Amino acid sequence: MADAAVNSYELDLRAIQFTLYEHLQVQQLFDHPHYSHLSREECDAVIAQCAKFATQVTGPLNGPGDRAGCRFENGTVTTPDGFRQAWKTLFELGLMSFAMPTESGGFGGPHAVECVLQEIQSGANTAFNMYPGLTHGAADMLFHCGTQAQKDLFLPHMLSGRFSGTMCLSEPHAGSDVGAAKTRAKHVDGEIYEITGQKCWISAGDHDLTENIVHMVLARIDGAPAGTKGLSLFIVPKVWVKPDGSLGKPNDVQTGSIEHKMGIKASATAVLNFGENGACRGLLMGGVPNQGIKQMFRMMNSARIAVGIQGIGVAATAYLNALGYARERLQGSAAKNFKDPNAPRVAIIEHADVRRMLLEMKAKVEGMRTLAVKLALHNDLHECLKDVDAGKAARHRGQVDLLTPIVKSYCSDQAFRIAELAIQTYGGAGYVQDNPVEQYCRDAKILSIYEGTNHIQAADLIARKLQANGGEDFRLFLEEIETFVARHEKTPGIQAEVTALGVAVDALKRAAAALMEFFMSGKVDQVMLNANDFLAVMADVTIAHLLLEAAVVAETKRGSDHDDQSQEEFDFYAGKVAAAKFFVNHVLPMVHARVATITAGDRSALDVHDRGFSTAV
Amino acid sequence: MADAAVNSYELDLRAIQFTLYEHLQVQQLFDHPHYSHLSREECDAVIAQCAKFATQVTGPLNGPGDRAGCRFENGTVTTPDGFRQAWKTLFELGLMSFAMPTESGGFGGPHAVECVLQEIQSGANTAFNMYPGLTHGAADMLFHCGTQAQKDLFLPHMLSGRFSGTMCLSEPHAGSDVGAAKTRAKHVDGEIYEITGQKCWISAGDHDLTENIVHMVLARIDGAPAGTKGLSLFIVPKVWVKPDGSLGKPNDVQTGSIEHKMGIKASATAVLNFGENGACRGLLMGGVPNQGIKQMFRMMNSARIAVGIQGIGVAATAYLNALGYARERLQGSAAKNFKDPNAPRVAIIEHADVRRMLLEMKAKVEGMRTLAVKLALHNDLHECLKDVDAGKAARHRGQVDLLTPIVKSYCSDQAFRIAELAIQTYGGAGYVQDNPVEQYCRDAKILSIYEGTNHIQAADLIARKLQANGGEDFRLFLEEIETFVARHEKTPGIQAEVTALGVAVDALKRAAAALMEFFMSGKVDQVMLNANDFLAVMADVTIAHLLLEAAVVAETKRGSDHDDQSQEEFDFYAGKVAAAKFFVNHVLPMVHARVATITAGDRSALDVHDRGFSTAV
Repeated sequence: MADAAVNSYELDLRAIQFTLYEHLQVQQLFDHPHYSHLSREECDAVIAQCAKFATQVTGPLNGPGDRAGCRFENGTVTTPDGFRQAWKTLFELGLMSFAMPTESGGFGGPHAVECVLQEIQSGANTAFNMYPGLTHGAADMLFHCGTQAQKDLFLPHMLSGRFSGTMCLSEPHAGSDVGAAKTRAKHVDGEIYEITGQKCWISAGDHDLTENIVHMVLARIDGAPAGTKGLSLFIVPKVWVKPDGSLGKPNDVQTGSIEHKMGIKASATAVLNFGENGACRGLLMGGVPNQGIKQMFRMMNSARIAVGIQGIGVAATAYLNALGYARERLQGSAAKNFKDPNAPRVAIIEHADVRRMLLEMKAKVEGMRTLAVKLALHNDLHECLKDVDAGKAARHRGQVDLLTPIVKSYCSDQAFRIAELAIQTYGGAGYVQDNPVEQYCRDAKILSIYEGTNHIQAADLIARKLQANGGEDFRLFLEEIETFVARHEKTPGIQAEVTALGVAVDALKRAAAALMEFFMSGKVDQVMLNANDFLAVMADVTIAHLLLEAAVVAETKRGSDHDDQSQEEFDFYAGKVAAAKFFVNHVLPMVHARVATITAGDRSALDVHDRGFSTAV
Repeated sequence: MADAAVNSYELDLRAIQFTLYEHLQVQQLFDHPHYSHLSREECDAVIAQCAKFATQVTGPLNGPGDRAGCRFENGTVTTPDGFRQAWKTLFELGLMSFAMPTESGGFGGPHAVECVLQEIQSGANTAFNMYPGLTHGAADMLFHCGTQAQKDLFLPHMLSGRFSGTMCLSEPHAGSDVGAAKTRAKHVDGEIYEITGQKCWISAGDHDLTENIVHMVLARIDGAPAGTKGLSLFIVPKVWVKPDGSLGKPNDVQTGSIEHKMGIKASATAVLNFGENGACRGLLMGGVPNQGIKQMFRMMNSARIAVGIQGIGVAATAYLNALGYARERLQGSAAKNFKDPNAPRVAIIEHADVRRMLLEMKAKVEGMRTLAVKLALHNDLHECLKDVDAGKAARHRGQVDLLTPIVKSYCSDQAFRIAELAIQTYGGAGYVQDNPVEQYCRDAKILSIYEGTNHIQAADLIARKLQANGGEDFRLFLEEIETFVARHEKTPGIQAEVTALGVAVDALKRAAAALMEFFMSGKVDQVMLNANDFLAVMADVTIAHLLLEAAVVAETKRGSDHDDQSQEEFDFYAGKVAAAKFFVNHVLPMVHARVATITAGDRSALDVHDRGFSTAV
C-alpha cells in the first residue's frame, strides 16, 4: 500500500531569521574578507531553496520511508521509493556544496547558515539526510587530510553526488572503546594497504543512491601500537576508480547485514566485511600512518555538532506539528467553565497544561537553535580571524570546542524529550502513524547514542574541555554570561529572571569546583558519576542566557517606538520574552537540584556491590 | 519469517518477596476473616505459576507479537500467532480469577498479590495482557453494577475466557472530554435500548481470542442531560447470548478499522461502529439510567491503577535486561586505567555512569512497586475492615483514592524514562530489535496517555483528592511520612537522607499551600499549569519515603546478628540501602526545583498570545 506523499515537516522561517540576523547578527560575517563573496540575500535564497526542497521533496518521503525502511536482499541494500530522485535533486540544487570551501569547488558559505540548512534537512527527513551528511563529513575530511592525488580521485565525485561517503569506526567489540578496534592493515605498496576486518553500525554503509561509496576506515597497521594511537585511516572505495573518474574493479567490501532499528529506518545501518576474500585494498589517508584518530576526529567533531543539529531539526518540527494540532483540536471547555457541560468547546491550546508543554518545547527549540548557530558563528569567526588575529581566532575556536559536547548531548536528549511532549500534546493521536510525532520520537532516540554517547560527551566536557587552554575557554564562557547578568539585572520585565541566571551561574561554578576537588582527591569515578549532571547544568545555564539575550533583543524591537509594527510581529517578539521567562522559571531551577546532587558527593552507585543491583539476573 | 520464541522477560522474585512480606507485611491480611481462606504459601504458588506463564508462554510472544502486530482484513481482526493458545492457557491456570470475589466464582485473593501478578503479566507482554486486563475490568464492573440476570448471562463466560470485555468511552470528538460523547440510546423495551454511535481507541475492541466480546458502552439516552451526568452505561455484546449460554444472532457492532501504533502493536485498538444498520441493542447496566459515568468510574479507577502497574512491569524487565547486558558486555577499561591501552577490558557495569543509570532504574522500579503494592494493601485493608471498623476502613479507602493518580502518572512516566535509560545502557544495541528494550520504550509511551492523560490525573489529584474528606486523606498521608522522619532522623547510615526527606515534605506542603492560594484567588489556570509539577513532587516524596522505609527494614535484616546469612542475601539488603540513598541524593532534589517553579507563580505560558508561540503554523 503506497502512502500518499504528504508533507508533515513544519518550519518557522521567521524564528530562524530572528536568530540569525536579529539576535546573533550573522551578517557581520559578510564584512570579513573570508565571507565577503556572500550576502544575506544570497544566504536567504539558499535557505528558501532548502526549505522548498525539505517541504516538497524529502518531507513527503519521511513517513513512507519509515514504513518501508531499507531492504537488504542478495547482499545489496535498497532505499525506499523516492530516495534516489531526492538524492539527485539535492545535488542539482547544490545544497551539499554550500559550506564546502571554495577551493574544493564549494560555495564557501558560513557554518552559521549551514547550521540552519542542516536543521531544515534533518528535520524534514532525518533518515534521508544521513546519506548526504556522511558524504559531507567524509568529503570534508578528505579535503583537509588527503593527498592531492587522493582528493583528485574522489572529491569531485563526492561533491557531485556520484559517490557517497561513510565513517567506519565501530566493530562488534569496539564501540565507545574505539581504540579496541581489530581491523588490520598490511602494507602492500606505496599508500596501498590490504584491509581485513569487520565494521558495524555503519550509517549509509550500503545503499542504492550512488555509483560508489567511499568508506573512511580506521584500521591498525601491522606492528602499530595498541589503543587509539596505533590507528590509521584508510580510504576504502566500494569500487575502484580510474584516474579519469570511471569505475574499475569492485573492491572486496561486502555488506553482511543491516540493522532493524527503532527509528531512522530509511537510513541503512550496515555491517561491512572488509577483505573477506583477501582482496580489499585501501589508501592510507594523507600518506601518514597512525594519525587515524586525529584525522577521524575532524569528522567526528563535525558529526557531533551535526547530531545536535539533527536533534534541533526533529524537535522543531515536532513542536510546530504539536502547535498546529493544539490550535485545531477542540476538546473540553475553558477551565473557568468546568462545571458547565454546555460551555463551548475550545481548542486545546487554551488549556494551561497544553500551553505549558508548548512553551517548554518552543523555549527549548529556539534556545537550542541559538546555541548551535552561536557555536557555528564562533567557527566562522575563527575562519575569518585566523590569519588576522590568531589570539582572537583561538578564543573563538575554544568556544567551539567547549560547546560541542553540549550541543551534541543537550540537543539530542531534548529532541527525544520534545518529541515525547509533542506526543503528549496530541494524546492518543500522537501514538499512531497518522501523525508524524511518534516517528520523530523513535528517530530521535539514536541521537543520544551515536557519535559518542552522551556520557562520552560529558566526560569530554569535564576531562578535556574545561581544562583546555588552562581553563581559559571555560572562564571566557562564564565571563560572557556574568557580563550579561551585570548589564541586565535591572532591566525591567526580566529582572527576576536575570537575577536567577546569575544565581545559576554561581551554582555552576560550585559544581565545577566540586568536580575538580573530586578529581584532585583521586575520585575519578565520582567525577564520571556526576559528569552528565554537570553537562546538563552547563547546558541549562547556556540556554537560559541565550533565551534572555533573545528576550532583550526582542524587547528593543517591539513596542511603542515601532508604531507601524504589525500585531503579528508584536506578538512574535512578545513570544520571545515569554519563552525566556518560562525557561528560567520552569527549567532553570533544575540546575540547583543537579548541583545539590553533585556537591553532596553521594557514592551509593559506586560503592554498591554488583549483587546489590539484583540477585535475580 | 517466523521469530524464534525467545523469552526476554526478566523478573526478580526475591525483590518482589521483599516488598510483599518483609517490607509491607502483606501476610497480615491472612489474619483477617476476609482473607483467612488464603495463606502466604498459596499466594506464592500462584505467583510462581504466573512467573512460569510469563516466562514460558507470553514472554516469548512479546517480540514476535510486536513485529507481526494485529491484522485487520475483511472486517475482522487477527491477533499474532500464539495469542489464542496463550489466552487458553491463562484461563486454564485460573490466573484471571485470582482477585475476583469468591461470590463471583473467583479466588478472592488480595489486591496486593494481584498487583504483583499484573506486574508480571504486563511486563512479560504488555500487548497481550491488554485483552485479559480489559476483560477483568469489565467483569468486575458487571459484578458490582449489573442486575442478577445480566451477571448470569455474561459473567461466567467472561471468567471462563469464552467471552472478553471492553470499555467504550472515547469518540472522535470526545477523548479527555468524555461528557461530549454523542452515542445515543433509544429505549426499546425494559432494559433494552437501541444504540447508535461511533467509539474509537477501543483496546481489545476486536480480536480472535474469544467467541464473543462484551462491550461496556457509554451512551446518552434520548432526552438525558448534557455532559457526563447524562451518560448511561450499556452492555452491548458483539453476539447475543441465549439464557443457556449459547450464542444467538450477531449484534450490529462493526469494526471500522484498527490503529497503527508506536507500540503495543499486538493489542488491537479498534474503531467500533454501533448501529450502522439500525440494529444494535444494548442492556442498561443495572437497569438504572444516567449512572454511566459513576459505574464506569469503578472500572476506570481500577484501570488507572492497572496502567501504573503496566508501567512497573515494563520498567522492571527493562531494568533487569539492562543489568544483565551491563554485566556481560565488555567495553573499555576501568576509569583509573584510562591512559593504558593495554589495560584489561571490563564489563560496563564497572563504569560509573552505567552504575548511575542502573541504580536510578532499580530505585525507581522498586519504589514504584512498593507504592503500587501499598495502594493495593490499603484496598485490601478497606475490604477487611469495612464491616468491622468503618472509620478505619474509610481511611484506607482515602489513601487508595489519593494514591491512584500518583500510581497512574508517576509509574507511566517513569516506565518510559526507565526504558530510555535501558536503551542508553545498551548503547546502539538498545536501538535495534535484537534486544527488547526499544520495544519496551515504544510500548510504554501509551501509558501516559490512556485511561486519563497524566495531566488529568494531576488535575484529579489537586481538584478532588487533596480536598477529599476535608483534606483528611492528604493530612494522614503527610503525617505518616513525618512520623517516619521523626523516628529515623538519627538512624545511623541514612541520617542525612531522612533529614532530606523531612525538608522535601516541608516543600511539598508549601507547594500545596501555594496551589490553594492560586485557587482561592480565582487563578484556576495557574493551578492547572502547575498540576503536573505538584504530582511529581508528591510522587518523589512518596517514593523517597518508601525506599527509606525499605532501607530501614533491610538494615534490620542484614548484618552481624545474622551470622548464617549468605553473602548474596547480605548484598541484596545492602542494595536496598544503596537504592534509597541514591534516590534521595540524585532524584529527590528535583522536588525543590519543582516547588520553586510552583511558588514563583510565573504566568508566561498563560499570558502569551497564541501567535507568540509561532507565527509560522
